[in-house]
Order: sequence, then structure tokens, then C-alpha cells
Amino acid sequence: MSPEPYRIGLLGHGIVGGAFDSLVGERADAIAVATGRRPEVVGVLTRSQGDFDQILAESDAIVELIGGIEPARDHVLRTLATGKPVVTANKQLLSQHGDELFAAAREGGTELRYEAAVAGVVPVIRVMRESFAGAHIEKVHGIVNGTTNFILSEMARTGASYAETLVRAQQLGYAEADPAEDVGGKDAAAKMAILARLAFHASVGLDDVPFEGIEEITADDIDYAKEFGLVLKLLGVAERRGDGVSVRVFPCFIYGGHPLASVVGPFNAVTVESPAITEVTLSGPGAGGVQTASAVLGDVVAVMSAEGMDLQPVSDLPIVPGEQVESAFYLHLEVADEPGVLARVAEILGDNSVSVKSVVQRGMGDEAQLVMVVHPVVEGQFNRALEKISKLDVMRSSPRAIRVIEEEFVS
Amino acid sequence: MSPEPYRIGLLGHGIVGGAFDSLVGERADAIAVATGRRPEVVGVLTRSQGDFDQILAESDAIVELIGGIEPARDHVLRTLATGKPVVTANKQLLSQHGDELFAAAREGGTELRYEAAVAGVVPVIRVMRESFAGAHIEKVHGIVNGTTNFILSEMARTGASYAETLVRAQQLGYAEADPAEDVGGKDAAAKMAILARLAFHASVGLDDVPFEGIEEITADDIDYAKEFGLVLKLLGVAERRGDGVSVRVFPCFIYGGHPLASVVGPFNAVTVESPAITEVTLSGPGAGGVQTASAVLGDVVAVMSAEGMDLQPVSDLPIVPGEQVESAFYLHLEVADEPGVLARVAEILGDNSVSVKSVVQRGMGDEAQLVMVVHPVVEGQFNRALEKISKLDVMRSSPRAIRVIEEEFVS
Repeated sequence: MSPEPYRIGLLGHGIVGGAFDSLVGERADAIAVATGRRPEVVGVLTRSQGDFDQILAESDAIVELIGGIEPARDHVLRTLATGKPVVTANKQLLSQHGDELFAAAREGGTELRYEAAVAGVVPVIRVMRESFAGAHIEKVHGIVNGTTNFILSEMARTGASYAETLVRAQQLGYAEADPAEDVGGKDAAAKMAILARLAFHASVGLDDVPFEGIEEITADDIDYAKEFGLVLKLLGVAERRGDGVSVRVFPCFIYGGHPLASVVGPFNAVTVESPAITEVTLSGPGAGGVQTASAVLGDVVAVMSAEGMDLQPVSDLPIVPGEQVESAFYLHLEVADEPGVLARVAEILGDNSVSVKSVVQRGMGDEAQLVMVVHPVVEGQFNRALEKISKLDVMRSSPRAIRVIEEEFVS
Repeated sequence: MSPEPYRIGLLGHGIVGGAFDSLVGERADAIAVATGRRPEVVGVLTRSQGDFDQILAESDAIVELIGGIEPARDHVLRTLATGKPVVTANKQLLSQHGDELFAAAREGGTELRYEAAVAGVVPVIRVMRESFAGAHIEKVHGIVNGTTNFILSEMARTGASYAETLVRAQQLGYAEADPAEDVGGKDAAAKMAILARLAFHASVGLDDVPFEGIEEITADDIDYAKEFGLVLKLLGVAERRGDGVSVRVFPCFIYGGHPLASVVGPFNAVTVESPAITEVTLSGPGAGGVQTASAVLGDVVAVMSAEGMDLQPVSDLPIVPGEQVESAFYLHLEVADEPGVLARVAEILGDNSVSVKSVVQRGMGDEAQLVMVVHPVVEGQFNRALEKISKLDVMRSSPRAIRVIEEEFVS
């Protein structure tokens, strides 16, 4: 007796959609042995082909790989309303319309799965949703954008400028022709909103996540940082702060021995912290058609073989503004080479409770530079000090500040 | 209306069992919200208290944390025969009686879950079982014993001897009073047997896994290795080789930039490789009562909320003997300081197709040493060369060989 088919309606047939279609064909027999049902793509919707209502009627589940907001949002909502499960890789949709979509899944008594929306094939969604369902998660942070991690890794390796390295990333297919969402941090912010919602059962959307990109990073910053044993990464950080949560994306230095320091090239990595688990890190390729398709297929297998579960009751955690969060900083100042410059800078820092951990003075005359690392301080205070320093007449350019993750890897 | 209870029978109330009991109490409400049922420990079996048959009759699931083979084996088999699911952390039981236990789960139409048996709270079992259920896994390797990783990390950090560091590990609670199973590699071998069974759907048991420990490692080895930029780890490797599989445990050098190099102290890490996913690495604490209890609770939540799934059809992959596997080696020779010694060693290596990648000669007279790294070679050939070298009259002691993972982190 041949196994009963599990009928999949596929929305979108681009790079990921095409790879998913092929992968289902390759792995159908093995999945049939494991689950008792044989997955099969029974309908494909593209801009030029297919009718959504007909595909929905003929399918047991919908896989949404169109991307963007509309018509993806409409199709997902209508599918969930029928009680059929949806698997999607659409991070912008989830981060901008999460409340509405998860409510629709609950009302429909079905599942909305989205492993491929964050960190590609790295199974951080499933692990948080299921393995750590019994844990109280305090913090989730990591590298969730492969384009920026490739660029920063290459800048560190070659000493080349940001602009040169971006072109190289585009040539190699690691950056898109229009890289704005990746290099500006918005892509990572969408993913961090999704992770924060899941980690804290809170209503976090893209608008709640302030983000900074890597466009202003210079080869100089990376060189100086090496002297302190630091590596530059674009980090996403979601954490409980008092009775609320803080979710942010920013470029940040970490120490060479930190587990995220060895995550290079287009790889992603996410660390989940909880008293019950200490910390668990997951890393792997953050993108790629086959890898993303593999994550989508993992979700399809999950909806095929498990009952629908609602693990996402939404609580009312407030969002803590970034100004109230403590961070350590690297501070780079181009100064006039005059006596007393360091003293004036140090005085402003001291007045604002900013404590200097280490400082290097470099160059002479028009080339003089002060580079320092300061201990963790409330960001609002640091910013006030920075504003005063930028107004000193000895400054030859605007100060550059980059956050530093101070903690060494705790073992 | 209060949620229906989910009744757990707990076998064993040691460090992990006690931590599990507490954790269930702490997290019961949150789990009830997520799953609709409230977990509750309804019976506890210890050596001095409780009756197994009565506990089984009153429970929806059994959590086995006794350890060892009997009576754990008997209790698990009898539970599965009733169709009730079992969650266990018992690596020796699973690695020595896996065929029998998984067959019993299939016959009972229920689940046997064992996340906590490998790598503590690092969710490698669930990820392989579920997220990568659609992938063809080629290789699983990593650091699966926290005691040895702590000792090797400390030796590298302090320069102290193996014996001194073992005592320190025992004082800190990272090594047991009788550390033989950990430092000798048997504990890691049991875990690799469990991972290999799952990765390859093959009948792999502890007896199929040759293992070496770290007892013979000297501070000297670690020092020399630093010159080559290498870090020493006790690795477990399970991989497809031709039409079979090879599963082994051995101390091994890896390059500093390798993602496993930054896994220090009692942490564990496992890398899973497959064409569809490239490679995904999971790392975190490998032991600890609360962490292990958290992994057990994750499994309990899984059996509470999902249908039983049989993802483990067993195939007939043969085990490939280690002699046929290729490895690179670090080779340390204490030699008489005479002309022509290097030439004689090089000749033997060349005759056996062993190609030298780098070599350092050190010391003079009675202190002379040759330290080299050789390119990957079939281990049987390397061993023949090693035997001949050991018989040279210029050797002042037995040669020491340690495998080297050559590959840099592929990004």
C-alpha cells in the first residue's frame, strides 16, 4: 500500500521556491517512511501562473515563499482561516504583522511555522519553541544577517574599505544589487523582532527595534580594534530589562575568544540564555536557496506529523528604550595634537560617569587619534558625554563610538 | 477550569532527578498555558522508596533518571510495552541496548525520548530528529564530554600536567572521583553511538565505537601544538564512508579558527553536516543537574503535546574499520641528535605514502625532538610507518601520534 499523499500548495517559485520543489521530490520517500505520508507539491502560484483559491482548496498545507507584504499577507490569513497550516520564510511579513497572523493561527486552530525566516537552516525557532519551551529565556543575541557578517569578516581579513568589500560581496552573490535592508540593519531588526516575540511571548514588531547598520564602519576601526583583541560583528540583542524587554541591532566589538567571534563569512549564530540552560549557541549558514528550502521542509515535516500547538500566548512586556540600556563602548577620536587634550576628554567622561578601561594615543599633528574602550555605562549618559566631546574645539572630526560586548565566554 | 494534569512517574531522585522534580514545579503553570495540560510528578521511585508497578499504573509517562543498565532497562521496556512514553537521560542504556529499546517503542506505538543523554541541554537530538528529518546527514562530529574538554582547556591555559589538572577538575566538580569513563573516552563513545544511530538510521552500539582517551596527553604536546596554531580536543566523529559508517572517539588537534576551538571548559558542541544544510553547530553546557533536568523537561513537553512519531527505521549500514579511514596526524618523536635522523624518518614515511606538511626540530643531544604534522593518509598506512619508526635505534622513546582536523572553517 502506498502512503497517503500530503498535498502542499507552493506560493512563489523563485530561488527558494524552486529549491524547495526539488527537495520535496528528492526526500519524499524518506519522509513517507518516517511520517507515513508522502509530501507532494500539488499546485504552484507565481505572478503569471496558478489560482490561489484553487490551490488552497486542493492542499493540506500552504508554503508561502513569495516574500513582501501583499499578496503574501492575504494568502496566509485566508489559509489560516480555513484551519490549514502555513509554513513561511517571510521575515518582513512576520515582523510587521505578527499579532494579526498568530491570532489568525489560534483562531483557525492551526499552525504557522517560520523556521526559515530567521537564520536560515539554523533551527533556532524550533529549539526555542520546543526544546526550551520549559525554560524562562532571559536573552537572545547573535549574528542574524549573513551579508553584513561576510562584509565585516572580509574587511578584517583583507584590510579593504567598506565600499570595496561591498562590491566584492555583490560579485560573489553574498549581497544584493540593492543591499540597503541588509547593510542598514533592517533585515536583522525584523529577525530580532521575530525572535523576541517567541522568546518572551511578547508583542514585538519591527517598529519596536531600533537598528544601526555597518555603512559607516571604516577599515581603521577594525584595525584599531585588533590591538584590543576585538572582532567587529553586527549583533542583534533581545533581552529582558526590569519588567520590560529591549530589542536592538547594532555593530559591536566582541573579544576574540567569544564563541561568536569565530562565526565568519555568511554564517549566522544565535545564543539563547536562560537560568535553566545557561547558554546554548546555534550556528550555520544563514541563507542560500537549498539551505532555506531545507528549513522550510523541516517545518512541513513538523506540521505533517504533529498536532497543532499554540505556544505563543502574548503577554504585555513593555519595550525598554535604548537610552536606558547599559553598554561598553569603543571610542575613536581624531584630535588636535595639543597638550591637555586627553585631560579634557577624560574630564567630560568622568562628569558623565563614563569610566575608561583602556586608551591608546596615536600619531602626531594632524594625524593624532585617541582610541579607547570604556566600561559599561547607561547609554543616555554616554551619549551626553559624546555630544560634549564632539563640541570640543580640539576635535578634527566627529567622534565614532561602537559598542563592545565585554563578557568573555563563561565556561 | 483548571487544566487536566499530565502525570509523570519519576525513576531516580539524585542530582538530576531532584532538579527535574523542582523544575516541573516551577514551570508547570507556563507549560499548562502552552500545552493545555499541567505536568505533575505523581510518583518517585528510589532504591528505598516507591513501587514501580504502582507508579507506572498511575502515570501518563515515565522519566528514567536511575542510570546504569538494570533495573533501568527493565522499567523502560515494561513502560514502553504499555504504550506509555519514556524520557531518559541514560546514555549507557541507549548505547548498549538501543535496538531492543527502540523496537519496544515501535511495538508499543509510543515514544522514547533521550535529549539529555547527549550533550546535556544542547538540543542536538531534537534538531537531528526533527529539523533535519528531511536532510541526508553525512557527518556528525564534536565535543561530547565536558570533563575532558575542561581538562584539556585548563592544560592549555595553565601549562599544568594532565595529572595535576585532573585533580583540579575533581576539586571543582567537573570530574568524578572515578573519572575512568570520562577521561578514557567511553562516555563520549556511548554518546557518539546514540548520535550515529539517529543520524544514519543505523544499528550502532557502544561496541561499534573504538575510543581513545586523554590520559596520555602531555603538556608538551599541547605546547608544541600551539606553535602550529592548534588546539587539542577530545572529538567524537560519526560519518558515512562509502557504503558504511565510521564512528570513533579520539584526542585531536584542530586549528584555532575552527568553530570547535572556542568551545572551552565543560561545554559541549556538535556539528551536523549534510548537503542540504551545509553545516550547523550547536553548543552549550554538556552537564549540570539543572541543565540536564531542563533537557528532560523539554522532552516531556514534547511527548505531552505531539503524537508519537517513528523516525527511526533501521537500515543495514556496515561499520567501516578505523584502519581504512584517512586522517592527518601530529607526530612527536624523541630522537638521538645524530646526522641523518630526519632523513631516516622521512624515508619510512615516504615509503608508506605519508606526506609531511610541516616539521620542527628542537633541542640538542638527549633533548632532541622532531615534531611534525603530516597530510591526511589512510590510518593503516600511517600505523605501519609508525611501527617502523618506533623500531629505529635513534628513538629515545615511543613516538606519540595525535590526529589533526585539517579543514579550516568553511564559510
